[in-house]
Amino acid sequence: MPTTTTDDEADFLADFHHTTTYGATPAGGIDRQAGTPDHGDVRAWFRERATGLGMTVTIDAIGNQYATYPWLPDAPSVLAGSHLDSQPLGGRFDGTYGVVAALHAAARLDRDVRAGRLTPRHNLTVVDWFNEEGARFAPSIMGSSSMAGIKDTAELLEVTDPDGVTVREALESIGCLGSDPAPEVASYAEIHIEQGRILEREQATVGAVTQSWDTRKLVVTVHGEQSHTGATVMADRHDALVAAAKIVVMTEDVVADYTPESIVTSVGQFSVLPNSPIVVPREVNLVIDLRASDAADVTSARRTLVDAIAALAADRDLRIDVEDFDVRAVQRYPLDGVELVEKAAADVGVGARRIATLAGHASVAMDRIAPAGMMFIPSVGGVSHCEREFSTDEDMVRGTDVLTDVVARLVAGDLDDTTPGEPLAETTTDTTNHR
Amino acid sequence: MPTTTTDDEADFLADFHHTTTYGATPAGGIDRQAGTPDHGDVRAWFRERATGLGMTVTIDAIGNQYATYPWLPDAPSVLAGSHLDSQPLGGRFDGTYGVVAALHAAARLDRDVRAGRLTPRHNLTVVDWFNEEGARFAPSIMGSSSMAGIKDTAELLEVTDPDGVTVREALESIGCLGSDPAPEVASYAEIHIEQGRILEREQATVGAVTQSWDTRKLVVTVHGEQSHTGATVMADRHDALVAAAKIVVMTEDVVADYTPESIVTSVGQFSVLPNSPIVVPREVNLVIDLRASDAADVTSARRTLVDAIAALAADRDLRIDVEDFDVRAVQRYPLDGVELVEKAAADVGVGARRIATLAGHASVAMDRIAPAGMMFIPSVGGVSHCEREFSTDEDMVRGTDVLTDVVARLVAGDLDDTTPGEPLAETTTDTTNHR
Repeated sequence: MPTTTTDDEADFLADFHHTTTYGATPAGGIDRQAGTPDHGDVRAWFRERATGLGMTVTIDAIGNQYATYPWLPDAPSVLAGSHLDSQPLGGRFDGTYGVVAALHAAARLDRDVRAGRLTPRHNLTVVDWFNEEGARFAPSIMGSSSMAGIKDTAELLEVTDPDGVTVREALESIGCLGSDPAPEVASYAEIHIEQGRILEREQATVGAVTQSWDTRKLVVTVHGEQSHTGATVMADRHDALVAAAKIVVMTEDVVADYTPESIVTSVGQFSVLPNSPIVVPREVNLVIDLRASDAADVTSARRTLVDAIAALAADRDLRIDVEDFDVRAVQRYPLDGVELVEKAAADVGVGARRIATLAGHASVAMDRIAPAGMMFIPSVGGVSHCEREFSTDEDMVRGTDVLTDVVARLVAGDLDDTTPGEPLAETTTDTTNHR
Repeated sequence: MPTTTTDDEADFLADFHHTTTYGATPAGGIDRQAGTPDHGDVRAWFRERATGLGMTVTIDAIGNQYATYPWLPDAPSVLAGSHLDSQPLGGRFDGTYGVVAALHAAARLDRDVRAGRLTPRHNLTVVDWFNEEGARFAPSIMGSSSMAGIKDTAELLEVTDPDGVTVREALESIGCLGSDPAPEVASYAEIHIEQGRILEREQATVGAVTQSWDTRKLVVTVHGEQSHTGATVMADRHDALVAAAKIVVMTEDVVADYTPESIVTSVGQFSVLPNSPIVVPREVNLVIDLRASDAADVTSARRTLVDAIAALAADRDLRIDVEDFDVRAVQRYPLDGVELVEKAAADVGVGARRIATLAGHASVAMDRIAPAGMMFIPSVGGVSHCEREFSTDEDMVRGTDVLTDVVARLVAGDLDDTTPGEPLAETTTDTTNHR
């Protein structure tokens, strides 16, 4: 077990709380969307801090930042990290906690390596993934998906935000469009806040993540006809907003058919054209988000919605396009990695519980190319992607201890014989147009 | 009856169709929102054309443009006109037809005055009202409401568009922030497309407008809580969008309790925050538009909606603010003016029908300070505020003939003893906050 002092704890907390000043919002959150000046500033802080701790910093073609202790020439790296970008008016902990915890875990282990207490079989790299949140540039989990070869980097660089700015331009504007090769990955570790309330409810300090949920989005466009709100009698209208509102209500209602807490459905993005108080809307663009622990539930909920949308289009005599987007099958983390997290929690002396992740994480992408261990700490009240997101200093400190222990075991070669995770059967996608 | 030649008809049509090139859209509409460069260009054309026809052009403090034949020193004016601004992706006819028709009516009557065929008791002013549509700057019917003293001009000049540009800045940018006094008004005439399909259905060429509808808006803000679409279980959410969607559906459903075609309800403006695909929305701002021929129906529909919104807020444990906005009582046009339109239609030899206006018009504001005559020509299919809005050349020509006859009668003093219209009892407003 790595050695940790109370000074280490104080240093970690000082660094973590310092990061919350970048893009700080009045209500106690942060707003650091990918590629914005505030995101650039916190990433510059990361480079400076890592360099100060003796690491070598590189940046790859999609803007992922890597800070490496090159203990062994030409050896692959254990990667540990998360992301520094946030949702609009997001929380201070989501992503940032995992990056700062990994920085401190690495610094402690470097101390152990230099003191001869840890014999590395791999180098160690702390990673700050670019654009995990996907609020400004879709899809989310962009940097790790590029690095894992799941998405095409050249295409991702041309993705635009709502103002037409490309990923490439945004990366250039914050000095993060790199050309360094990404490190070869031996294994991967990530710690994150749970963003749910299972750990809090069951009073466990650490969650050993076993698998991701099955997730998919449906991009829906409702094509109505623009007309005068005052002069157009109700029978003559093809109101895109009323139809879109019914889709929002359907999207919530569909969960009633399933076990509580086994499925979540939402519409987060919803834009109305022309959006004038006295014009019946001609078009609404919306994105439905479907997630469930069981892929069959996502498939059947999707089918229910697609059929209901077709009936709605016919009933209201307007066209509705539905397109599958960002489809992600359930992915299991290797059992060896889950057990490794449990061993580390036992070493630190905190309670662990196996848990699935409803949210996507970089570890899901990394787990395709290298064995990954993913762990959670509790989120107070389970709230996330909002300014009142909160985790305690005590849980953050214990989580960092567990991460340090996990990474020590990875550096020593504990998962060297483990095969990476595999997605369960890929689900099909199609595009439907209803008139 | 004024004299009209086929050359007059051709001149009118040439001018009207020329205006459709300003802000023309690929699908055959126009996009000339108030204070935009395209709106500035068509207003410059108006000044140039009116000057070429021998009129004197002035601009008042809210940007209304007046083109006057000053036949009599210090006499008040008969005003005739409409507006040149449009909705986003709006139609070519709404407003613009009335301005071009008034320009040509005035030119014909000036010819008659100079030939001694018409003895004026008033001067004649063609008016191009600023910001009738209210899409970029709320409220609508801005220029005429300022001129009639119904709204405070200083406050209107500080109204901002969604980008924070003020009315004052927009007027300056198109060279239309004037300081000339508005003319003294003897009486007012306006011709407009119906924007409904009653005239088409009943095969009447002209509608003699008897009264406006009772209208009001409700500005609604739904305050939910931002959270993660993936990680937040359904029971923990306070989704502002689902609640707002239910309000949209309620707003349509409320008309089921009333006589068809006697009431219209809509939501045209609807904005979601933060509008990210993986964030449960924290806030929705929307505007409900309620209009009915009978004020009691607007009052009762409003009460039904306000009560249902209160119940929704309680049911979903979130706060919903509702505020009355832009409340306009039914206003009757003077019967003398209605009969004058009917006489003019008879002179021209076209069929007329009495009709109410569902849409607001500058004539409703002018009718508070001077007797007003309002007339409609048919809209094909009743569609308006959209690119496929259409009226035939034949109907536009006949309508211009009727307008010319009406204005000739007004110039001769026909409504000099008529009192202006009065709004029926003002309805009450209040603000409600539901938790």
